[in-house]
Amino acid sequence: MKQYNFNAGPSILPQEVIRQTADAVLDFEGHGLSILEISHRAKYFQPVVDEAEALMKELLHIPDGYRVIFLGGGASLQFCMVPYNLMEKKSAYLNTGVWAKKALKEAKAFGEAVETASSADSNYTFIPTDYTVPQDSDYFHITTNNTIYGTELSDKKLQDIYQKRGSVTLVADMSSDILSRPVDVSQYGIIYGGAQKNLAPAGVTFVIIREDILGKVSRHIPTMLDYRTHIDGGSMFNTPPVLPLYSAMLTLRWLKQFGGVEAIEKRNIRKAELLYDAIDHSKIFVGTAREEDRSRMNVCFVLKPEYQDLQDDFFRFASERGMVGVKGHRSVGGFRASIYNAMDIEGVEALIACMKDYEKSK
Amino acid sequence: MKQYNFNAGPSILPQEVIRQTADAVLDFEGHGLSILEISHRAKYFQPVVDEAEALMKELLHIPDGYRVIFLGGGASLQFCMVPYNLMEKKSAYLNTGVWAKKALKEAKAFGEAVETASSADSNYTFIPTDYTVPQDSDYFHITTNNTIYGTELSDKKLQDIYQKRGSVTLVADMSSDILSRPVDVSQYGIIYGGAQKNLAPAGVTFVIIREDILGKVSRHIPTMLDYRTHIDGGSMFNTPPVLPLYSAMLTLRWLKQFGGVEAIEKRNIRKAELLYDAIDHSKIFVGTAREEDRSRMNVCFVLKPEYQDLQDDFFRFASERGMVGVKGHRSVGGFRASIYNAMDIEGVEALIACMKDYEKSK
Repeated sequence: MKQYNFNAGPSILPQEVIRQTADAVLDFEGHGLSILEISHRAKYFQPVVDEAEALMKELLHIPDGYRVIFLGGGASLQFCMVPYNLMEKKSAYLNTGVWAKKALKEAKAFGEAVETASSADSNYTFIPTDYTVPQDSDYFHITTNNTIYGTELSDKKLQDIYQKRGSVTLVADMSSDILSRPVDVSQYGIIYGGAQKNLAPAGVTFVIIREDILGKVSRHIPTMLDYRTHIDGGSMFNTPPVLPLYSAMLTLRWLKQFGGVEAIEKRNIRKAELLYDAIDHSKIFVGTAREEDRSRMNVCFVLKPEYQDLQDDFFRFASERGMVGVKGHRSVGGFRASIYNAMDIEGVEALIACMKDYEKSK
Repeated sequence: MKQYNFNAGPSILPQEVIRQTADAVLDFEGHGLSILEISHRAKYFQPVVDEAEALMKELLHIPDGYRVIFLGGGASLQFCMVPYNLMEKKSAYLNTGVWAKKALKEAKAFGEAVETASSADSNYTFIPTDYTVPQDSDYFHITTNNTIYGTELSDKKLQDIYQKRGSVTLVADMSSDILSRPVDVSQYGIIYGGAQKNLAPAGVTFVIIREDILGKVSRHIPTMLDYRTHIDGGSMFNTPPVLPLYSAMLTLRWLKQFGGVEAIEKRNIRKAELLYDAIDHSKIFVGTAREEDRSRMNVCFVLKPEYQDLQDDFFRFASERGMVGVKGHRSVGGFRASIYNAMDIEGVEALIACMKDYEKSK
């Protein structure tokens, strides 16, 4: 039976990326060796890194003065790399979820890290707007999509943040919505994220960085934690995660073929509309995030109070229909359907049909 | 034409690991999803991590009190994680190559890092023995195999180090000889390495750690750099490099099937004997490392002075015979054949035949 992959991350990748990666595991581009065993210094691997970087720049319209690097260690390692590289005394964080809170926690070891606002008290169901950004902060950190809670900074709220930051450098964790919609990169000092949602299999992290913000802190930075190291090394200061990086490049090619970020955004909007509409018209399900802050990537919903005891039953029903990974994160409960770039309309329709059929059966 | 993979790393992996990984990219163990898109929290992935850890313990006879963790970031990240976690004031390093020197450099930012001895002046052609280990060091760091220079700490020299360290915690970078021979793990506080030689494709790092050495430094440690985080998280504090970790588990299975570390050591000894013997009996080639310190993993050799101008010609000849990656590192020049666990006797014989045929043609 066909499986529909709604995993929150690692998550669905385009079928052709999967097939091409499998081919490369058997024989990398006809060189007679597996991608698992080629040297990252081989003359035929450098073009992979170059193309991945170039496609990121092209698809996100990244302006001059920015570099794109690929690292290991995950977004969690960025939580300390950001303050290591940028924070002399003070930083500011918008706390919109567990990952934002974890990022804030790491910064606190480096100086004064201010929480500008938090929606923790409401279990992160919305994106706060009632705050100011201290203008003496070395940077202001946001998380554009909150995977666990199904909230996302809408374009309108991002515009508000661009205003609020004033002259403070903006840093964003875009792990779970990078490449799902256009972004005005020029507003940011750093955009980073684990690539295992819209970009690649697990094991590679992307960082988009405006070069001129570096070199301004007085502390010593360990070599591997210094962005300068990886910029100068062209993402190959040390052995990079070769296969995840190759699959990232293939996914970027796929996205370009699809029509780029602008085209995929249209489909992402359509997918989210369909699914939220089904939830809003359901007798038994209800969404968890405030409407204006709903994520297009992670759609969180629960059973209405009077249907709470159907939780396990629906989960089993959905699993039997090939719906994979629709269990909500334990901090929200209920259900979560992650509908990243590679999920097509048909997959969303299959989930909606499954929800409707279940509802009818009750 | 058959390719013989002598790459220094990422490097040759067993053919069945490559095939099984390719299968998993198309469909992970019959679950209907690619390993590229499964959740690391899926109930069918946890056994992979558990088995990888258990096989490391079994194959290396790791005693109680030690933990095995798998991380991203490469061995280079360990260069700062080791002092971060272990060094209160002072550490000692044996400088036997570029990687050892890089590790030492990172430690210098954390306090007094003593270079006990160095063979840098002779371009690292041997392993120094004339030194003592300061007994007030928080640890003593060694690199058991020097990939670039083709030197390795013989069992005899390791015994000498176990004496010299006295009561100082021993830390070893075993990136390029882990699992190639038995090791007395009880002598070490930490054994770490990039896994992309004898264990896995690029993107995963292993750390074997004696738990009781942790928690003794007074500094704050960023969460992701704290070994405790990854021990407590069972290598899954954050998203691990899923595919590289799976291939590592497959390689460990293969090694167990082969007869374990003891059996592979016998073959590794035989391979190294064959190749060094061919070099020693050659009219045109000569080894670069001092005989007693020769590596079984990386065999470095150059053309004798009178044949220097054949450098490019032999490299081309070898390439045409399917010998991949035999170019020496730029800091040594000449040639390097890396003959890791997965290289069989036939591969070494093919290289020897190639060298002999070339010699005859001159």
